[in-house]
Amino acid sequence: MVKEGDSIPNIDLFEDSPGNKVNLSQELASGKGVIIGVPAAFSPSCSEQHVPGYITSDKLKNAGKVFVISVNDAFVMKAWSKDLDSSKASGIRFLADPAGEFTKAWDVDFDATPLLGNHRSKRYAVVTENGKVTKVGLEADPTKVTVSSAESVL
Amino acid sequence: MVKEGDSIPNIDLFEDSPGNKVNLSQELASGKGVIIGVPAAFSPSCSEQHVPGYITSDKLKNAGKVFVISVNDAFVMKAWSKDLDSSKASGIRFLADPAGEFTKAWDVDFDATPLLGNHRSKRYAVVTENGKVTKVGLEADPTKVTVSSAESVL
Repeated sequence: MVKEGDSIPNIDLFEDSPGNKVNLSQELASGKGVIIGVPAAFSPSCSEQHVPGYITSDKLKNAGKVFVISVNDAFVMKAWSKDLDSSKASGIRFLADPAGEFTKAWDVDFDATPLLGNHRSKRYAVVTENGKVTKVGLEADPTKVTVSSAESVL
Repeated sequence: MVKEGDSIPNIDLFEDSPGNKVNLSQELASGKGVIIGVPAAFSPSCSEQHVPGYITSDKLKNAGKVFVISVNDAFVMKAWSKDLDSSKASGIRFLADPAGEFTKAWDVDFDATPLLGNHRSKRYAVVTENGKVTKVGLEADPTKVTVSSAESVL
């Protein structure tokens, strides 16, 4: 399970289309960043509470580069981004981890097959600085938003 | 591969939420129906061409019960339905086949792992009457909309 001092997995994620790769180990190699992991795009906990908390936080501007990751495909993540932050004013970028490889590399996947058809990401927020993890807020119950909230993490 | 005379798989699909089961072998046991299979919610071919062709067809009212199925989860299918047909005026219902079990039962899945992370549904439209398949339009190339279009099928 991801912990302080860990590196960021050198595994490609996808933004807006399945052909557009983004590598967070490169994107966050220097400076500050936050990686927010969620179980499911368009689900109530993720859409009404967790991610909007970051989008509207007044501390967001000092958080560095902020990314939301889910085990969904790039088409879905693009649509969800448009739905939550149509103007992209927050600067938060929505990335797809379609086969869950990034999520598994940090050992934060769980078996959501009965509800969602596959393994998904637990709910978490990870703060990074110069490519290393400096803080982890990982929810024991992925339907709850407590230690991974914007209020707790930023 | 699904063909004329086949039955409809007795496998639950999900509508609007992961808890709300819909069984098409029951829903379509009598009367006419159309089942439209697509590779990916919110993808350009599915969202701008294939499904809208059915939503706007003047033959839709005589088609019986019409369903769109994709290997996406129920949250995504609900959001996609809202995006394409916010008033639900068409009567078309959007169902999730999250683990692809319905899709595999008709042998219309393909390996989309490099782009979308998992196995997805080929693009097709199947017409049913009294629970039996009476017509199949299956695309050889899932990115194209030809034999599965509303114009070809309705």
